[in-house]
Amino acid sequence: MADIEGRNAVIEAFRAGRTIDRLYILDGCKDGPVMTIKREAAKAGTPIKYVSRQRLDQMSETGRHQGVIASTAEYAYAEVDDLFAAAKEKGQQPFFFLLDGIEDPHNLGAIIRTANMAGAHGVIIPKDRAVGLTATAAKASAGALNYTKVARVTNLVRTIEDLQKKGIWTVCADMDGTTMTKLDLRGPICLVIGSEGSGVSRLVREKCDLIASIPCLGDIDSLNASVAAGVLAYEIVRQRMS
Amino acid sequence: MADIEGRNAVIEAFRAGRTIDRLYILDGCKDGPVMTIKREAAKAGTPIKYVSRQRLDQMSETGRHQGVIASTAEYAYAEVDDLFAAAKEKGQQPFFFLLDGIEDPHNLGAIIRTANMAGAHGVIIPKDRAVGLTATAAKASAGALNYTKVARVTNLVRTIEDLQKKGIWTVCADMDGTTMTKLDLRGPICLVIGSEGSGVSRLVREKCDLIASIPCLGDIDSLNASVAAGVLAYEIVRQRMS
Repeated sequence: MADIEGRNAVIEAFRAGRTIDRLYILDGCKDGPVMTIKREAAKAGTPIKYVSRQRLDQMSETGRHQGVIASTAEYAYAEVDDLFAAAKEKGQQPFFFLLDGIEDPHNLGAIIRTANMAGAHGVIIPKDRAVGLTATAAKASAGALNYTKVARVTNLVRTIEDLQKKGIWTVCADMDGTTMTKLDLRGPICLVIGSEGSGVSRLVREKCDLIASIPCLGDIDSLNASVAAGVLAYEIVRQRMS
Repeated sequence: MADIEGRNAVIEAFRAGRTIDRLYILDGCKDGPVMTIKREAAKAGTPIKYVSRQRLDQMSETGRHQGVIASTAEYAYAEVDDLFAAAKEKGQQPFFFLLDGIEDPHNLGAIIRTANMAGAHGVIIPKDRAVGLTATAAKASAGALNYTKVARVTNLVRTIEDLQKKGIWTVCADMDGTTMTKLDLRGPICLVIGSEGSGVSRLVREKCDLIASIPCLGDIDSLNASVAAGVLAYEIVRQRMS
């Protein structure tokens, strides 16, 4: 993750339109330049985290953060419309991934890699409570991030509603659903994968058209998030190819 | 990973039959007790790594390593026969995983987790050039390591030959094979997964009965090792269930 430190540098980054994943501001800091930065962050929809001086000092590479550190994406985010355009360009039914709160950049990268290899047209992630396109995620994607579009949205539930209006079936991975092989997954589809710790959130789950379950034949009841995404993605691929 | 430090402690650990993943010995150290430790390591088949004093000092938690540190598994290894016994006990056709050089403990843990959930009877890993059952791998397995047996073998090629003699089909995951859905994967089976960097080694690949490929519909040509293991495992599950 490339960090930008110091007030002017951060203000300039916002004004240049650089994508900033997260802004760290010294707790209690409210002077003019910091208020300007907060306004820019609000306009860009960047989440702000208020942290202690000790934390900022630890994060700082330059030692001169002036109370502000911005974590920037190394890769640019796409819009959801770009994902539709990618599907259209290939003359294919849309096939998207939507990730509800993946926190581990290795998992995010592995899922982007899977999305690419499985022929999906892009990945949708939320702005809040999730990891963005950090250097670690880019590395774990093994190059897939250079090809596969990643869109970042403010509200997953609204995004799902928009997708549904455009004829996309949203399929959420969860226990207590229908065994994946028994569902018809051949149409325009968005595969919804939950977070590592707690799976798909209730509101997102309730919005989805289908709930697909991976057969559980052992003693434990869930897979690693990126493995689950791979297993479901390839069930979709299998049905589309057959 | 629990480490045992100091000459007597390490000798005792070997004599008590504790599984030691790897032994670190101060380079050039050849006195009596160290020679005894090396003999014990040879008997147990434990790989030895000769390192500098600086490296040992860094690894040491106690500060009193006396030139010897042993990395121990937190979980005991099984034998390949135990995997056959587990299949027999459940009245099922054997379904094993064999991992050719997985180096990342997160991947090892995720694969053990997948093996458990997919109903496999165990995982076989090599003693050399691969990560063992470290604390990180155990954590990434999300509890699966308490149920799923892991056997560690000296020679993967010989193990594959032994499995084949017992009627197991060995299926290796690799590019340039047959699309997985077109293979018959319903019999007694061992799924062979290669390492993160270089896939399945040539000797292992040549020994396998079948080469199964995951469809590649994007720009890149491979998945993360644990995702690939999951996709192939669930193709086996699908064929067995249908």
